[in-house]
Amino acid sequence: MEKTFIKYKKGLKLKSPILLVGLPGIGAVGKLVAEQLIREFKGEKIATLYSQHFPPRVVMLKNGKIKLVGNRFYKLKTKTKNDIIVLTGEDQAVTPEGQYIVNNKIVDFFVNTLKGKEIITIGGYNISGNYTDKPRALGNASSDKVITKFKKSGVVFGESRGTIFGSAGLIVAFAKMNKIDSICIMGESSLIDMDPNAAKSVLKVLSKNLNLNIDMTKIDSIIEKTAKMIKELENQLSSNVPMPSEQKDNNNRSYIR
Amino acid sequence: MEKTFIKYKKGLKLKSPILLVGLPGIGAVGKLVAEQLIREFKGEKIATLYSQHFPPRVVMLKNGKIKLVGNRFYKLKTKTKNDIIVLTGEDQAVTPEGQYIVNNKIVDFFVNTLKGKEIITIGGYNISGNYTDKPRALGNASSDKVITKFKKSGVVFGESRGTIFGSAGLIVAFAKMNKIDSICIMGESSLIDMDPNAAKSVLKVLSKNLNLNIDMTKIDSIIEKTAKMIKELENQLSSNVPMPSEQKDNNNRSYIR
Amino acid sequence: MEKTFIKYKKGLKLKSPILLVGLPGIGAVGKLVAEQLIREFKGEKIATLYSQHFPPRVVMLKNGKIKLVGNRFYKLKTKTKNDIIVLTGEDQAVTPEGQYIVNNKIVDFFVNTLKGKEIITIGGYNISGNYTDKPRALGNASSDKVITKFKKSGVVFGESRGTIFGSAGLIVAFAKMNKIDSICIMGESSLIDMDPNAAKSVLKVLSKNLNLNIDMTKIDSIIEKTAKMIKELENQLSSNVPMPSEQKDNNNRSYIR
Amino acid sequence: MEKTFIKYKKGLKLKSPILLVGLPGIGAVGKLVAEQLIREFKGEKIATLYSQHFPPRVVMLKNGKIKLVGNRFYKLKTKTKNDIIVLTGEDQAVTPEGQYIVNNKIVDFFVNTLKGKEIITIGGYNISGNYTDKPRALGNASSDKVITKFKKSGVVFGESRGTIFGSAGLIVAFAKMNKIDSICIMGESSLIDMDPNAAKSVLKVLSKNLNLNIDMTKIDSIIEKTAKMIKELENQLSSNVPMPSEQKDNNNRSYIR
Repeated sequence: MEKTFIKYKKGLKLKSPILLVGLPGIGAVGKLVAEQLIREFKGEKIATLYSQHFPPRVVMLKNGKIKLVGNRFYKLKTKTKNDIIVLTGEDQAVTPEGQYIVNNKIVDFFVNTLKGKEIITIGGYNISGNYTDKPRALGNASSDKVITKFKKSGVVFGESRGTIFGSAGLIVAFAKMNKIDSICIMGESSLIDMDPNAAKSVLKVLSKNLNLNIDMTKIDSIIEKTAKMIKELENQLSSNVPMPSEQKDNNNRSYIR
Repeated sequence: MEKTFIKYKKGLKLKSPILLVGLPGIGAVGKLVAEQLIREFKGEKIATLYSQHFPPRVVMLKNGKIKLVGNRFYKLKTKTKNDIIVLTGEDQAVTPEGQYIVNNKIVDFFVNTLKGKEIITIGGYNISGNYTDKPRALGNASSDKVITKFKKSGVVFGESRGTIFGSAGLIVAFAKMNKIDSICIMGESSLIDMDPNAAKSVLKVLSKNLNLNIDMTKIDSIIEKTAKMIKELENQLSSNVPMPSEQKDNNNRSYIR
Repeated sequence: MEKTFIKYKKGLKLKSPILLVGLPGIGAVGKLVAEQLIREFKGEKIATLYSQHFPPRVVMLKNGKIKLVGNRFYKLKTKTKNDIIVLTGEDQAVTPEGQYIVNNKIVDFFVNTLKGKEIITIGGYNISGNYTDKPRALGNASSDKVITKFKKSGVVFGESRGTIFGSAGLIVAFAKMNKIDSICIMGESSLIDMDPNAAKSVLKVLSKNLNLNIDMTKIDSIIEKTAKMIKELENQLSSNVPMPSEQKDNNNRSYIR
Repeated sequence: MEKTFIKYKKGLKLKSPILLVGLPGIGAVGKLVAEQLIREFKGEKIATLYSQHFPPRVVMLKNGKIKLVGNRFYKLKTKTKNDIIVLTGEDQAVTPEGQYIVNNKIVDFFVNTLKGKEIITIGGYNISGNYTDKPRALGNASSDKVITKFKKSGVVFGESRGTIFGSAGLIVAFAKMNKIDSICIMGESSLIDMDPNAAKSVLKVLSKNLNLNIDMTKIDSIIEKTAKMIKELENQLSSNVPMPSEQKDNNNRSYIR
């Protein structure tokens, strides 16, 4: 087995594909978006990346079989001008070196094998402690041209600060080195584990940008369920903790980590 | 020294061998099963895998010698149609990358050098907190064919959830990539360090599946000893506020570390 | 992408260049010095080192774009006999192996491609707990010749003890292996995160040694701001903590981490 | 720079050399023994091993220079039949993989370049909590022949249990793979950081085995100093029981770090 390799269907003909990358990360924003799109637009798996840099684990499936962790490319069934490919998976690479190798492989495959034209990575932007029910979609892009284009779809530029770790950041850097357009879109996320609200903010801008009619009722029902779960958790906590002032503080933080 | 290599007896003739993998892991289930089989069926060592991915350590033997940690293949003396090979050892690879490399080497050697036909990995399935004296043997397999076959021996499918880390999982994935049948059988384990009860549940299904008459009195006596030890521990704990002199001991230890 | 590589302007003609290395580290001394020099002497970027051994991250820029972390070489606009090159960046390599590889690459590039003649690395020397407002610039060098030369500029030798971790130390060792002069100059640093006072002590000896007229008003204003910030922090802490004896303890430590 | 390499004096003629390995480890036993022998028998440095697997650090010397960490081979000035080579250094390799690579390199160099005949590694055997003023020298060897030989010098076999981590263990394993005699001698050590008593127990058996008249007054004076230091520490600790209010303070500090 090679260290990092991609198994793919030979002979695929794609129309100037755009890649959407939604891997595990802050608020699970990338994964939520990717899974919604693959389900709604009947994504067909066209390639799988395996790597010695992923955690050494297999997932136990309900049907009694197993699945080796990997990153998988799905072609959506859409009538858009460009084919839309979604990349998602169970894990990101574990080590710094692995991150560079795996993400470089992803970009190399998309650019040189799939003849891709543009990459959009999706992540969460941590605003924990500053809850908002109207999270924005912040962006950082490879060039002014890309910024101008995505501003029209509602992405906010120049307000994000700090670092983008992992695939969502490195893939944009490598895309730029390969001279294709690229952007990282981040939903403002106040729930670290899973923030469907943040995911919705990204789905909305993608809908405009890709000219795709995305059904928002599904993400809305996840938002509702999550809100209910948090409320229950808060109730439980408030009936346990002695001092009201302390309570509030604790509650505000408890569901975030 | 190569990074990962296998020293083996050349010229071995094996009858369509089946590999049982019992390495350190949850409840020491794999190791307990492997050691019982090797002892009972007079396993003969036929190959040793050494790797720079194992912990850098040697074991001090009672005879005053040393043993470099490794994974060792034993051929059982049985009259079964297929030769049975058992793999066990002191350690698994330390890093994610090492796990992929070592387990890939194991499968490659078994398939291509030993011309193996099937691999059964053995592990524990963590149910700590939910003690049962009738643990089941849960399974995840490479194909429906394998599931059907092992159901007959009492393995339960479709009830395990989550992740199989390390050799027990990766080897099944790599066996599948190499197009041979494979299954991971996990004894439900409520004792993380060593659960002989869980090991017995696996021995029972192996006995049926391999058509091997395995002596259960040995594992039964380990079960008894473990139960006694736990009882004593519980008694100690319930009577347990330390005496002043004991406390002093703890203080004295401080300058040593 | 190669593991570690340097992108640089071809055809550069440099006059027997001297390299100043100011990377992140104790008291941010190296970075403070490097940034001051690049700003004051209009440093022009001539080369960038990227590596799989850096943290896998990109920096979000105010203009909405991104920057992959790296180490960058700047040529100062000075009228000195030797060209002065400053190396700075967001990160050092993460792993021990990465440290050796990246720093070896830096020295190799400077010696063999840029035909460099001397390397000065800049760091902080941790004296936390022993605050002084007159920190000295301590030095450790590759040879007696270098020691003699830098003593004249006020660098103190033979008083530093222990270990220099990372680039500031390894680069001097590799320069020596490559038979060029090298020294590590460390400002005594009592503030671990950022110590502009320590940086000033280094700027002063560099000013003499390189025969460069460095403007000290900028670093002086950072020193002032930092002092004010610490005073405020101390006031806050002292108005919170009940017992005077405790206060002192806390204050002594508060600004260190 | 190669990953791991040895710089050595070419053209050395050695008389069937024996290698003593005394690197940092439990009780600093190996280092204490190595340093005593090098000082007493005027060891001359004949080779230095550098490696990317050591910590990325240089040591600051009193003379204002620096030293890159490494493992160094010294030839003792003795009139023994076999030349005695001592290996010591500041560090061992950091990672498991590095341990295998560096220790393999050491054995390979000694066997194939220096034409060595036997390797003795020196370590501490942790008996903390069971202080003894008469520590024994325990041994684990590559063969019965070696055991028989060292028993005569007072090494005790078959009483050590568990694992030897790092160079002291791996080098014996690799020596055995290279078909030369080898042993690990461990002084029983109750002081983890530095146990000169344990070192003396090893010096005594080496003295007999190598037919070397080793001066014990130096190690005796270190033993005395260490004993005095521990007594003082104990006095401080026993006179030091903190006041209840102070204790609380200490607990409160925990969130600061």
